[in-house]
Amino acid sequence: MQFAGSHILSVQQFQRDDVERIFAVADDMRPYAQRRRITRVLEGAILGSMFFEPSTRTRVSFGSAFNLLGGEVRETTGFESTAIAKGESLYDTARVLSGYSDVIAMRHPAEGSVGEFAVASRVPVINGGDGSNEHPSQALLDLYTINSEIAGRGGSIDKLRIAMVGDLRHGRTVHSLCKLLCLFPNVQVVLVSPLELRMPGEIVEDMRKSGLQVMESDVLEASIAHVDIVYSTRIQEERFSSQEEADLYRGRFRLNQSIYTSHCEPNTVIMHPLPRDSRDNARELDDDLNDNPNLAIFRQADNGVLVRMALFALILDVAEQVDRHARDVSWYTAGRF
Amino acid sequence: MQFAGSHILSVQQFQRDDVERIFAVADDMRPYAQRRRITRVLEGAILGSMFFEPSTRTRVSFGSAFNLLGGEVRETTGFESTAIAKGESLYDTARVLSGYSDVIAMRHPAEGSVGEFAVASRVPVINGGDGSNEHPSQALLDLYTINSEIAGRGGSIDKLRIAMVGDLRHGRTVHSLCKLLCLFPNVQVVLVSPLELRMPGEIVEDMRKSGLQVMESDVLEASIAHVDIVYSTRIQEERFSSQEEADLYRGRFRLNQSIYTSHCEPNTVIMHPLPRDSRDNARELDDDLNDNPNLAIFRQADNGVLVRMALFALILDVAEQVDRHARDVSWYTAGRF
Amino acid sequence: MQFAGSHILSVQQFQRDDVERIFAVADDMRPYAQRRRITRVLEGAILGSMFFEPSTRTRVSFGSAFNLLGGEVRETTGFESTAIAKGESLYDTARVLSGYSDVIAMRHPAEGSVGEFAVASRVPVINGGDGSNEHPSQALLDLYTINSEIAGRGGSIDKLRIAMVGDLRHGRTVHSLCKLLCLFPNVQVVLVSPLELRMPGEIVEDMRKSGLQVMESDVLEASIAHVDIVYSTRIQEERFSSQEEADLYRGRFRLNQSIYTSHCEPNTVIMHPLPRDSRDNARELDDDLNDNPNLAIFRQADNGVLVRMALFALILDVAEQVDRHARDVSWYTAGRF
Repeated sequence: MQFAGSHILSVQQFQRDDVERIFAVADDMRPYAQRRRITRVLEGAILGSMFFEPSTRTRVSFGSAFNLLGGEVRETTGFESTAIAKGESLYDTARVLSGYSDVIAMRHPAEGSVGEFAVASRVPVINGGDGSNEHPSQALLDLYTINSEIAGRGGSIDKLRIAMVGDLRHGRTVHSLCKLLCLFPNVQVVLVSPLELRMPGEIVEDMRKSGLQVMESDVLEASIAHVDIVYSTRIQEERFSSQEEADLYRGRFRLNQSIYTSHCEPNTVIMHPLPRDSRDNARELDDDLNDNPNLAIFRQADNGVLVRMALFALILDVAEQVDRHARDVSWYTAGRF
Repeated sequence: MQFAGSHILSVQQFQRDDVERIFAVADDMRPYAQRRRITRVLEGAILGSMFFEPSTRTRVSFGSAFNLLGGEVRETTGFESTAIAKGESLYDTARVLSGYSDVIAMRHPAEGSVGEFAVASRVPVINGGDGSNEHPSQALLDLYTINSEIAGRGGSIDKLRIAMVGDLRHGRTVHSLCKLLCLFPNVQVVLVSPLELRMPGEIVEDMRKSGLQVMESDVLEASIAHVDIVYSTRIQEERFSSQEEADLYRGRFRLNQSIYTSHCEPNTVIMHPLPRDSRDNARELDDDLNDNPNLAIFRQADNGVLVRMALFALILDVAEQVDRHARDVSWYTAGRF
Repeated sequence: MQFAGSHILSVQQFQRDDVERIFAVADDMRPYAQRRRITRVLEGAILGSMFFEPSTRTRVSFGSAFNLLGGEVRETTGFESTAIAKGESLYDTARVLSGYSDVIAMRHPAEGSVGEFAVASRVPVINGGDGSNEHPSQALLDLYTINSEIAGRGGSIDKLRIAMVGDLRHGRTVHSLCKLLCLFPNVQVVLVSPLELRMPGEIVEDMRKSGLQVMESDVLEASIAHVDIVYSTRIQEERFSSQEEADLYRGRFRLNQSIYTSHCEPNTVIMHPLPRDSRDNARELDDDLNDNPNLAIFRQADNGVLVRMALFALILDVAEQVDRHARDVSWYTAGRF
């Protein structure tokens, strides 16, 4: 695809070489995100960060990524404006607000709303989550993490073996990741969930049509024995009709250090889209894994900044100029990463 | 007036040459707002954006205008602070908060509060709306839009013919605009509203005393037949005692493409302070006008950035320096405007 | 202490020479805070401002201080995120959010939470208030103000005589200030409060052990007759079980110009952590003191910016570089301070 000036609305707009291009640029962003260098390539540019649904970490991750490129951020959180309550169409909102920035990152509770907004926007829009529909930057950072973790272990995304564990029915991140994995036909996927929380059939079907080998299971231990990645997810309690119903599943699949040692191959990577549920009755990833060097969950969150910097750099067509506007960091950063 | 260091509290502080000075500076801001150039003239300066009453578009418009001049923005939205609840006077609040920035843009629900705040502030304050009282930057952007639209059509503000349509009783923007038009004695104004929602008598009186020709009407079609501008407004439902009462008037005056073609002179400009009410029972400006090149409502919103940049540049006395701190834009902006 | 890379969690981590170092750097910040010069020493750096409990003035003071050094601010206010509600541990929150910035300023309602957060954070954390526990930058700015006010009057912190007046039981700021004063053994302290609202015994004990001379009183006039500083505080009504209970004490100790003239030595300095309660039944510092040049309450608030700039400069180890990245201010600042 042509990145300059494009909206990023869905993982389904990417071909394999688009993904590789994003990852190459994300790699280039590492010295800036790790504070070994700073760049001012987007000095003077403005990100419109419009989170009509709150999300601290996604919002701050987008904002910091833009700041790290030298740009400014103007934010809206929640439906503070009553313009929509006063009968304003999403078309009008988009036409007006897109005049205040150079690029927009937007989250909205209604499925499809970000795409509708993008049609009327005069600047590129990145979908930061539209209801249960899409969250493409999350899928990209997940795949970027998979790629960098297994590359460091001598593996390759072309022979990836991954287990996804937990609430596969409601988890938006695993849905998007599966759609993105369809670009890599040799991948083997094990889907581990309670029967009632299985991955939607059409997503499984799409993966199989794309050539992936997909297995489904409701047993944890055997399913994580021969994989490169265990991708754990929490029970999405907010999608259940009651806490009691969610409690039926919470804590069903718990990975801790003892199970990891007994069942996983050495150096199996552990991922999670976060937040992980650390309450006693949940603990899908136990705290005793915190010292396990294969626990990649915080590297995964850090990678979100790299991937979002890459998306901004590509959309605004400055990927080649980042280094030209760079200089050394002059403040204390020891122990930063 | 002397702009450097002054508060901007009311349209009534301006003489005609002040307005012309603001418009001349706003014109100079266009290349920056349109991303053909960037300027860093206010690098290091801080705007205190204090919206004690929420307003996404006005708040973001002020913030982006300040960013476009190279400055930073520190924001407060809503009454998050309980200082006032703890008995703090507006004097104390102003003395303290004005120590944190170089200029303040403030909205507050109480009439007169921004002026009271300004008295105690140590830095210039721009009134971003104080209850039903004043919102001077809105009136300025409206008049700036009128001026630039009719200039492009060979007209002039000195022989302006304008129809204001809708809820003229409650609309703060039309009140302020009328006060500002008093500086231009040859203007002809047609006020179109339901009888119960007529423009307040003292404003009509002031316009007549200033020499303007003012007509009042409750019929749309004839009233828009011989004007340069139709300025439409929505029913300000939040000022009515009930939705039912507002419903009595909503949808009374609807302009759509068919009425426009049948009744307006060619190239009559359509304006609206936004948000327009696009619900079925309202539609004071129909969506079928969206492709009409004379629909100026989004240019009007864009002009808000220019006018606010001009106010900041004049108050902080950098209008002459903007170009000296300018450089080319290095990111992708095609199709920006 | 070693400032570079350190957390600032409690006044008890400081020795006397640490305090003096902070004050020396704060002095150096004055030309920048007063807009005679600007510096870009932290250009490219990001402050994570995380106010899980709202506080407009502390939040904006930290943010402006960081902007004045040239850095950017990414903010979170309130518990907008539901991550903690979804069972996320403070450890996970800290690990993730600390990846988005170079330094964090944090307020949280739970005592000890900021310290717990700091353990997991990968960047330095400044405690902006954790419940009723600590608020070290407030104590530092209070002591900095005391020092600069009495130095200007020929006094010295080593022979300081100070009266603290009001709700000494609940006031977090006077608790922290007393702890910090323990570094200066010759100080004389008069504690003036209703019997029921006396300073906690262990704090009085600590001051006496450190060598300070401490008197307690429930009479205002005699207690303020021979001091350099009167530090007044409001009744912390939010800590009482009812407004009625708070009303028993509100207005008990009122300082106004007449009492000041009759009882205080000339040039006695008046301080208050703000907000002062200006309602009729409170008025612990009457508005008629506003023109008294010894009323230092707004200089005290301004000093908060200096002290916070100093903390950032020391923690990020750029105190020696500030001037090298400096230049003149080009906008209008007359009457700024």
